[in-house]
Amino acid sequence: MAKKTGEKYQAIIDAAVRIISRHGYHNARVSLIAREANVADGTIYLYFTSKDDILISVFNEKMGQFIESCRRQIHQTAAVEEKLRVLLEAHLGQLARDPEMAVVTQIELRQSNPVVSQGIGEVLKSYFHLIDEIVSEGVEQGVFHPRTDVRIARQVIFGTLDQAATAWVMKKCKYDLTAQAGPIHDAILHGLKRRPE
Amino acid sequence: MAKKTGEKYQAIIDAAVRIISRHGYHNARVSLIAREANVADGTIYLYFTSKDDILISVFNEKMGQFIESCRRQIHQTAAVEEKLRVLLEAHLGQLARDPEMAVVTQIELRQSNPVVSQGIGEVLKSYFHLIDEIVSEGVEQGVFHPRTDVRIARQVIFGTLDQAATAWVMKKCKYDLTAQAGPIHDAILHGLKRRPE
Repeated sequence: MAKKTGEKYQAIIDAAVRIISRHGYHNARVSLIAREANVADGTIYLYFTSKDDILISVFNEKMGQFIESCRRQIHQTAAVEEKLRVLLEAHLGQLARDPEMAVVTQIELRQSNPVVSQGIGEVLKSYFHLIDEIVSEGVEQGVFHPRTDVRIARQVIFGTLDQAATAWVMKKCKYDLTAQAGPIHDAILHGLKRRPE
Repeated sequence: MAKKTGEKYQAIIDAAVRIISRHGYHNARVSLIAREANVADGTIYLYFTSKDDILISVFNEKMGQFIESCRRQIHQTAAVEEKLRVLLEAHLGQLARDPEMAVVTQIELRQSNPVVSQGIGEVLKSYFHLIDEIVSEGVEQGVFHPRTDVRIARQVIFGTLDQAATAWVMKKCKYDLTAQAGPIHDAILHGLKRRPE
């Protein structure tokens, strides 16, 4: 098996996103991905063991890059409320810039295949960890409520982002997803309840 | 096609939940469902046109009953904050009481098959509508913030519930899901931010 790196590897990953988003994972034949990537069918198997392995690698590659860049931006931001805003904008912005990848993550990756859900588990966990870090920092600094349950807060943050992204994909990506980061930031920080003016 | 009602129809629906949650949708052969329901294979096709139709009917049947009962409880509740609590407890409680159905809704129903997503669209929309009603009522009564964006609030509420349920299914339903309704209610109403004591 060749190392998962290099120009051809990247070309296959990018081609897979296009083919899977267009045809659906089930109908995305490896030969279609090879043609789209301008490589021979056999070349795919130098890098990937199976179609599942391609899907897992697409997620881990793209999500890994996203988490890295998101973590860097968060570390460059001082105030914890702003860190949360950076995360929300990065998450929605990333999907808004790449609707084909959004279809893959919000629709095609949601499947019961245990090989796939295990394969993406580690990277997803590291994203949850990044969210938890922001929440914990907010609690430690006394900016967030002292009795905040970190797991519940993560479910609010990730759950809302994920639902916003899925709703946008279901509506054929027709509106500005990134514009929702502001109102989501406000809702997560302050809640629904009317506040004294 | 026979009417979607009656003892046999119900037996097939219940059997389908068990078989799909145990074997996964892909491997849930119609003959397995028939055997589990104690009916002949052919009987299934009196009620359902296809396996997709079974999955769609399972969701619409169970979710339809849930929305009805949830709507009744909400209408019997006066205060809008309590209505939100009733919704959160009903949503999580329903899945907690039926982990096999939870596997079907959180894992097996998440698939790119457009026939399935269209088939469950109407019922899902009526649930979103119920959530929107609570949010709008809270805004009209001045209990929720006057500038609340109903769509964003729905994404927070549904997104958090959905993520809480999926996390619970991924952890093999090992903890008390319904117990999360209280902290989720608090987080959605008051947000993360520390409030003046």
